[in-house]
Amino acid sequence: MMGNTFGNLFRITTWGESHGKAIGCVVDGCPAGLELSEEDIQVELDRRKPGKEYTSTRKEEDRVSILSGVFEGRTTGAPISMIILNKDVISEHYLRIKDSPRPGHADLTYWLKYRHRDWRGGGRSSARETAGRVAGGTIAKKLISSFGVKVVGYAVEIGGVGWKESNENYDEQDYLRFYEMAEESPLRIPDRDATEKAIDLIESIRKEGDSVGGIAEVVVLNPPPGLGEPVFNRFDAALSMAVMSIPAVKGVEIGTGFRVSRMKGSENNDPIILKDGKIRLAKNHSGGILGGITTGEPIIIRAAIKPTPSISKPQRTVNLERMEEETIKVEGRHDPCIVPRVIPVIEAMVAITVADFMLMSRIIPQRIE
Amino acid sequence: MMGNTFGNLFRITTWGESHGKAIGCVVDGCPAGLELSEEDIQVELDRRKPGKEYTSTRKEEDRVSILSGVFEGRTTGAPISMIILNKDVISEHYLRIKDSPRPGHADLTYWLKYRHRDWRGGGRSSARETAGRVAGGTIAKKLISSFGVKVVGYAVEIGGVGWKESNENYDEQDYLRFYEMAEESPLRIPDRDATEKAIDLIESIRKEGDSVGGIAEVVVLNPPPGLGEPVFNRFDAALSMAVMSIPAVKGVEIGTGFRVSRMKGSENNDPIILKDGKIRLAKNHSGGILGGITTGEPIIIRAAIKPTPSISKPQRTVNLERMEEETIKVEGRHDPCIVPRVIPVIEAMVAITVADFMLMSRIIPQRIE
Amino acid sequence: MMGNTFGNLFRITTWGESHGKAIGCVVDGCPAGLELSEEDIQVELDRRKPGKEYTSTRKEEDRVSILSGVFEGRTTGAPISMIILNKDVISEHYLRIKDSPRPGHADLTYWLKYRHRDWRGGGRSSARETAGRVAGGTIAKKLISSFGVKVVGYAVEIGGVGWKESNENYDEQDYLRFYEMAEESPLRIPDRDATEKAIDLIESIRKEGDSVGGIAEVVVLNPPPGLGEPVFNRFDAALSMAVMSIPAVKGVEIGTGFRVSRMKGSENNDPIILKDGKIRLAKNHSGGILGGITTGEPIIIRAAIKPTPSISKPQRTVNLERMEEETIKVEGRHDPCIVPRVIPVIEAMVAITVADFMLMSRIIPQRIE
Amino acid sequence: MMGNTFGNLFRITTWGESHGKAIGCVVDGCPAGLELSEEDIQVELDRRKPGKEYTSTRKEEDRVSILSGVFEGRTTGAPISMIILNKDVISEHYLRIKDSPRPGHADLTYWLKYRHRDWRGGGRSSARETAGRVAGGTIAKKLISSFGVKVVGYAVEIGGVGWKESNENYDEQDYLRFYEMAEESPLRIPDRDATEKAIDLIESIRKEGDSVGGIAEVVVLNPPPGLGEPVFNRFDAALSMAVMSIPAVKGVEIGTGFRVSRMKGSENNDPIILKDGKIRLAKNHSGGILGGITTGEPIIIRAAIKPTPSISKPQRTVNLERMEEETIKVEGRHDPCIVPRVIPVIEAMVAITVADFMLMSRIIPQRIE
Repeated sequence: MMGNTFGNLFRITTWGESHGKAIGCVVDGCPAGLELSEEDIQVELDRRKPGKEYTSTRKEEDRVSILSGVFEGRTTGAPISMIILNKDVISEHYLRIKDSPRPGHADLTYWLKYRHRDWRGGGRSSARETAGRVAGGTIAKKLISSFGVKVVGYAVEIGGVGWKESNENYDEQDYLRFYEMAEESPLRIPDRDATEKAIDLIESIRKEGDSVGGIAEVVVLNPPPGLGEPVFNRFDAALSMAVMSIPAVKGVEIGTGFRVSRMKGSENNDPIILKDGKIRLAKNHSGGILGGITTGEPIIIRAAIKPTPSISKPQRTVNLERMEEETIKVEGRHDPCIVPRVIPVIEAMVAITVADFMLMSRIIPQRIE
Repeated sequence: MMGNTFGNLFRITTWGESHGKAIGCVVDGCPAGLELSEEDIQVELDRRKPGKEYTSTRKEEDRVSILSGVFEGRTTGAPISMIILNKDVISEHYLRIKDSPRPGHADLTYWLKYRHRDWRGGGRSSARETAGRVAGGTIAKKLISSFGVKVVGYAVEIGGVGWKESNENYDEQDYLRFYEMAEESPLRIPDRDATEKAIDLIESIRKEGDSVGGIAEVVVLNPPPGLGEPVFNRFDAALSMAVMSIPAVKGVEIGTGFRVSRMKGSENNDPIILKDGKIRLAKNHSGGILGGITTGEPIIIRAAIKPTPSISKPQRTVNLERMEEETIKVEGRHDPCIVPRVIPVIEAMVAITVADFMLMSRIIPQRIE
Repeated sequence: MMGNTFGNLFRITTWGESHGKAIGCVVDGCPAGLELSEEDIQVELDRRKPGKEYTSTRKEEDRVSILSGVFEGRTTGAPISMIILNKDVISEHYLRIKDSPRPGHADLTYWLKYRHRDWRGGGRSSARETAGRVAGGTIAKKLISSFGVKVVGYAVEIGGVGWKESNENYDEQDYLRFYEMAEESPLRIPDRDATEKAIDLIESIRKEGDSVGGIAEVVVLNPPPGLGEPVFNRFDAALSMAVMSIPAVKGVEIGTGFRVSRMKGSENNDPIILKDGKIRLAKNHSGGILGGITTGEPIIIRAAIKPTPSISKPQRTVNLERMEEETIKVEGRHDPCIVPRVIPVIEAMVAITVADFMLMSRIIPQRIE
Repeated sequence: MMGNTFGNLFRITTWGESHGKAIGCVVDGCPAGLELSEEDIQVELDRRKPGKEYTSTRKEEDRVSILSGVFEGRTTGAPISMIILNKDVISEHYLRIKDSPRPGHADLTYWLKYRHRDWRGGGRSSARETAGRVAGGTIAKKLISSFGVKVVGYAVEIGGVGWKESNENYDEQDYLRFYEMAEESPLRIPDRDATEKAIDLIESIRKEGDSVGGIAEVVVLNPPPGLGEPVFNRFDAALSMAVMSIPAVKGVEIGTGFRVSRMKGSENNDPIILKDGKIRLAKNHSGGILGGITTGEPIIIRAAIKPTPSISKPQRTVNLERMEEETIKVEGRHDPCIVPRVIPVIEAMVAITVADFMLMSRIIPQRIE
């Protein structure tokens, strides 16, 4: 869980800069015997790909190659190295602002920490890095799905346009339906009206040269009970770290989350019941986690996503070379709203966390036969 | 960051059950040469102590002993073992419900995961465990304060009663003042009127046999810029894990947090300016962290705290022995509101995280002279 | 594997100084449901206890108390905190040499690293710390023994007096017999003649005010195949770290070890055969590990143990206060030979490593029923 | 220190199989500002390259490309991804023995652990993986050399032919000279006569279709005192793990190592003296480490290297498909002696460990200016 590596038994390491030669991901700790192809990964990469109508217009091809760890179509237990070559890279307009940190970006803090930084297209702090996470997350998804666990995500709200009242009585079928509907929407909103309203909003925001944020929800379906290592490596704590490590995420909540602060104990506590002979919770305010350990109910995590910091409006900054205040306009391709692209990244980080804890809980063996 | 150990270079390990012989904390990685006494730790332990008017009525003495790692009043670089003996322990009423997991508690999930559990007073999942965190956090606070860094906390809202509008223009003096005012309030609300209103609310809730939650804010003052290890061990990600690992916390946000989802990029981006010749941010929506790295502005983290799950109202549960539904009433001492007690715990976890990253960034040397 | 914590999923943290209030060990990650009593641990602690005829004459009682993690005689999955109070502590003669680092000890290096150190009885670097390891190792031994795995140790050579020719054809029964014979010997040599010869040697060395070292062998019986995580966390690499972390150990070898450097490939390679329908190795030069992964054959590790650095002969040192060369005589209780006391410590570290890898390989589940 | 990642603050992750598309290494945690080029790495890769007269005859080109983490010739603090494409790959003769594990190799244990394995050229367990370590080690070497620390290695003995009596009175100049002489020898023996004798031996062994092993010594020159984190992450323990994780290493010793077992305390203890006003040790039996912490004297580690398991003599094995005993002859390119090729790998692992501990001890800052 250091620097560019995430996970304990199931680990991913991402590397690469936005405008460098390539980006990539090494997955370590994946059991042997899992079927895996480049196509599996490509499908997920395409889900986060920019170039869709309401996001960025950069055309990345993002063709992934698997360089190791897979033999005759199945994993071997050795590290799986994946690489995506960078193309379509224009760094000129970044050259002009290389000493002018863009507000809301990591330009300033990379300079404060490292001094020497790759300023081309955001370098290491570019959202492009998250393609590596999605590649790694795909393997986690395949792994846990072979044990019946699925991770789905969708937008709850974009630019204040929402579609769903908080309701803790949804069941697995509902979440699956939200996911399927969201995959039909260019904004990943599982509701047609809200999608249209949000598209209108984004269009007008784009014309202003501005951007909007939103809230995403990711749900783990059919999770095993008993995941989570109290007292620090709780499952909710690990999930929070996983999701908060994604660029643009500024808040994370589990189950009822911040709304819990205005509820009474008697409202918030989930009654324990028997259903079809199994111990279940009558509601799921707890979002599938109690005391840091999974209950077996769907695990629900929400993330607050900030408006894209890249906007074309003029902004105040400081020229680091001349140490003078100045005003910049950030040119180039901007996403007026990155929420739909962030969702597959959250799903990836959640799936990696689930896989890691399923290994730590010895639910997944060292080889799959 | 496994199980009961937290941190990388500065690490704490807590142990102990609510009604066992003792609880404790081992701090490892603290540099040599730091002045430290049992009194230093006692002061912080007393801040989280129950028995204050509006929290629990259990009388713990919580006298801490330092068993190792300190010699002639200063740390030696060896692990610092601290112990607090358990007293005032009545387990009888827990015996009656030992097979009846209390809704909202970890009783059910510990049973699902471990089957064999110490059911006395919540056992390992009791909030009493957090005394160990506070003990460890005190050492972190002393360590970072010798480098000019301070961690302060207070309540933003209790049971829906708030006192403060979100305002990103506060400066370090403001936060210090909020903290000092909060320390005067039995509820740690830095506002006299709101304190009174919230006391009234809690009194009526207590009579109902119910409980309320709230929101806490913790601020790191004068933090060094450059903390945080992208892309996964970001400072905000690590903070989220630290705070979400605290019992009863269901949401975490940095800076403007969830409100960011309804803002435009032009509103949310913090302009970069020069102030007294130093690079600063004109606002602090980013809560002191950009791209996972600290900016040097105050670090602001908020936590959503759920209403105490222990309530005296009847609740539905399942008897695990007989595998039958039943209704229980949880007797004994209940906090109608734990928010004021959780705040020192959040401060502790934040201070530990700051200390750890200051070590990882090589800002704090291996000995203090 | 940082500082005072060892292990990944099964972890021990030791704390305490030789002449401080107490020493202790926290074991984390032990599955729930394992039967465990203070007596179990006491038996092993007594095996490493000084006060036997040919070792030190200090009388420690070393009574261990379990403070947490065990409920109604079985582990709960929560951290197991064990404490041993320090008694019989005379620090006066250490006061006289507190600025005079003893050659061969860690006095000098603790001063170089930490400056401020507990000089009483070696402080943190005292071999007394290893009692905590033995306490933790006992739990590991119990855990793996419930899966049929046993760890045994004995001396191969003391002060050059050996009893055994290298022979890679021993089987599990042989190792068990060596162990049982060694437990009858005050020097843990599984041979009566060699024991007598070594006793005579040690007696004459003691009169000279000098000390001797030796070689210990520890064997894991009936290990599961498949332990070890290539390419870095190999089982032999992890074992080496575990054993080399023990005070006084200066060399570690697996199987044929250093003798391999003078063998031909055709001699050293272990032929693969079928025996009773199972794949086995005809010899065990590889010491149970190939490519960093266990073969299922007995795992054999040897450690070189240096002569006790505490000798009563005059030695040259530098007074750190006055920065002058001087000659010191180290008074007090000395072990002329610590080999027999180190063996249970090596066994403990090996057992912890085996337990940890059995958890990582998902051979041991999260609870034992 | 899990699986395919090594290190704490300075970390390497290697990936790739012998006959796959490529192999590679990701270095994470390297401070920003270090000058680094592909040529720097190529020089070290060429040192371990096969194709020299007395080692293997496989022609690898081993051209390394840096894909990330370096910008305008200097590191940025971001992960450094290096890749070496595989060429000259003939897998046919491996196909014939794919179900016949070669004695002395990891074939059997990979099958036992993972079942599904890449049998081409040893797959992941091929020594080719160590090229990634050397690539990572080169960066560590450059980093520590900018703080005056150097790592050198040479052979002490090959097939029993040695050149050097153990002598603990060598100084830094001596070790440097050994290294320079060794670089002139095709076998990395720093002695012309011994080189010739060993060449003759290897020639005759090669004709027999057999192989020999040896002992290598690696020395850290001008190390800072105070490295090492007692009690488990001792510097010698970490070094042991680093070196024992290298294929073919079966034993590790520090300083006087196994010879210590036959010495008296009065012989083995290194007297502490003043030399040019600095605290020094009169001898260096302790190999630069006392109590797990570096003394500042040269750090000396030796490794026992087994004879290459690939020999052309017929050997007994078991066919895993048919579960029958059989005899195989391993065809293809064999190194009759890999000692000279292993030495740069040991140097690499030692340099990585030194770099990691220099970061953990906060001797190396987060950027180099």
